[in-house]
Amino acid sequence: MPGMVEHYCDRLNDAVRRCGTPAVVGLDPVLENLPPLLRPRDRRAESAARAVAAFCRGVINAVAPHVPAVKINIGFFEPFYGAGIEAYGETIAYAHERGLLVIGDVKRGDIGSTAALYARAHLDDPPFEDIDPARVPDAITLAPYMGVGAMQPFIETAARLGRGLYLLVRPSDPGADEVHEFGEGPRFYEHLADLVHRWGFSEELLGRCGLSCVGAVVAPKDAESTQALRELLPHTPLLVPGYGAQGATMEACRPLFRADGTGAVVNASRSVIYAYNQPRFALRAPEDWTSAVEEAAREFAADAGRALEPA
Amino acid sequence: MPGMVEHYCDRLNDAVRRCGTPAVVGLDPVLENLPPLLRPRDRRAESAARAVAAFCRGVINAVAPHVPAVKINIGFFEPFYGAGIEAYGETIAYAHERGLLVIGDVKRGDIGSTAALYARAHLDDPPFEDIDPARVPDAITLAPYMGVGAMQPFIETAARLGRGLYLLVRPSDPGADEVHEFGEGPRFYEHLADLVHRWGFSEELLGRCGLSCVGAVVAPKDAESTQALRELLPHTPLLVPGYGAQGATMEACRPLFRADGTGAVVNASRSVIYAYNQPRFALRAPEDWTSAVEEAAREFAADAGRALEPA
Repeated sequence: MPGMVEHYCDRLNDAVRRCGTPAVVGLDPVLENLPPLLRPRDRRAESAARAVAAFCRGVINAVAPHVPAVKINIGFFEPFYGAGIEAYGETIAYAHERGLLVIGDVKRGDIGSTAALYARAHLDDPPFEDIDPARVPDAITLAPYMGVGAMQPFIETAARLGRGLYLLVRPSDPGADEVHEFGEGPRFYEHLADLVHRWGFSEELLGRCGLSCVGAVVAPKDAESTQALRELLPHTPLLVPGYGAQGATMEACRPLFRADGTGAVVNASRSVIYAYNQPRFALRAPEDWTSAVEEAAREFAADAGRALEPA
Repeated sequence: MPGMVEHYCDRLNDAVRRCGTPAVVGLDPVLENLPPLLRPRDRRAESAARAVAAFCRGVINAVAPHVPAVKINIGFFEPFYGAGIEAYGETIAYAHERGLLVIGDVKRGDIGSTAALYARAHLDDPPFEDIDPARVPDAITLAPYMGVGAMQPFIETAARLGRGLYLLVRPSDPGADEVHEFGEGPRFYEHLADLVHRWGFSEELLGRCGLSCVGAVVAPKDAESTQALRELLPHTPLLVPGYGAQGATMEACRPLFRADGTGAVVNASRSVIYAYNQPRFALRAPEDWTSAVEEAAREFAADAGRALEPA
């Protein structure tokens, strides 16, 4: 029913404007890095999953006043098996309760028939009465390497429910270059960008803002190729990894925004959520770990906010 | 400790020889396709996960006498959230109990730091006392598009524990061609095959049989390109999708085996596990669904067994 649901990009733009920043905090919880206070007391997956969920609630409370969205990477929850997936779902629901948009970083990608099941699992409203509907994220990341048939179930679900997709086009990991850059002629990421643009550019997939629900993950590299990717993807909302611990600056990310400052969000994970391990945030008391996270989130939000100023 | 664990390919070869077939049955359980007897009576994810697990136990009982291994696709369990992941784990453990090798079809792929967590979740021995160690599969599928850094945690774990990996090189889905075939010069799947060969070809990764624990998923297409891929991957064990419901014959798969009949296993999913829906297996009673599955598994095993005969 068109008109009934608000487009993902319109919701995201509103949230970015309200917070004055396109900063997204990535929740990548690793058990060994949790504040000592929160570490589990026994060797049960259930306890580990609860510890990670408690950590994420603390981070969410600290960052919710400063950023429009969090990105939650399911890979950090899967080591706790079923209990981990429950903790992932509870973390999404908790972020929603605190008014945040949520990107589920799941990077799924499988052939058409399986893709339909993954779309049910990660993007569609749950058809079950024992599952909290708030545990579905507003957008997810996907691996597009199986072609449009593998993306179609996700695109349909996203369009129907006002949710979004970010398809991997240019990953931040330097090691990905040996896979993506070979032969002569067009680069693989340019070819992917072209496909993602075509898959997402149709009237029923665009929001009021002119952006599609089919987005892309694009890491900033040299200025020229970064700018070229933005031009290949004129209607594509971008999720930009690599800021902070991975080394990219807002300067490097700037070409990925549209002239009006919309069109991209920038993620930082480790540099924010583990701020309490940085010497510059000397803690007075172990409970103070959340103040360090809040301070790091505030700094990140302010730095990323510069992208919203007219270029 | 070298010598302590048996190499995945040596274990797989023994099992294939014992059964006389390289046939692998794929468990892709979809709720709507289950025998009516097994369908859940309420709208709870927990009940749905139990129904799917019960179906998989029935299929495993029916196919265990005929094939060396099953492939379990986690995508069909994720729609049931945490309960689904528990059902996935229980299904793996049950297949092990029945003497089958298990390939976990998870297709994970993320940058290095996250990859380490995915390797813990899907391939490593569980460090938790409430997790059954039998729920870890013998091999998993992976998406290699993030480069060697993203594969390294999996390769190390596989080598250490005698487990295997199958990296997506040429998917069976026809839609993947628009992603993998572009520009002039080498095809993307040839480039991937070259990388997979290089990542897996080192002495400490090879078994007695001369095959590596780093394998590949290669769908048969035309005879020429299929044969060329086998030559690019001389030490790589192959997992071959596309047989049965997806249309490939054993004739088309034959070039993917080495001359001695080793080096590949062939998967069939829907044509076996849903055999009871085929008119040719008219059921006398609803409980008979497993006889239809067993008969289809027997036929598939016999057909695939031809690959072991000298070429």
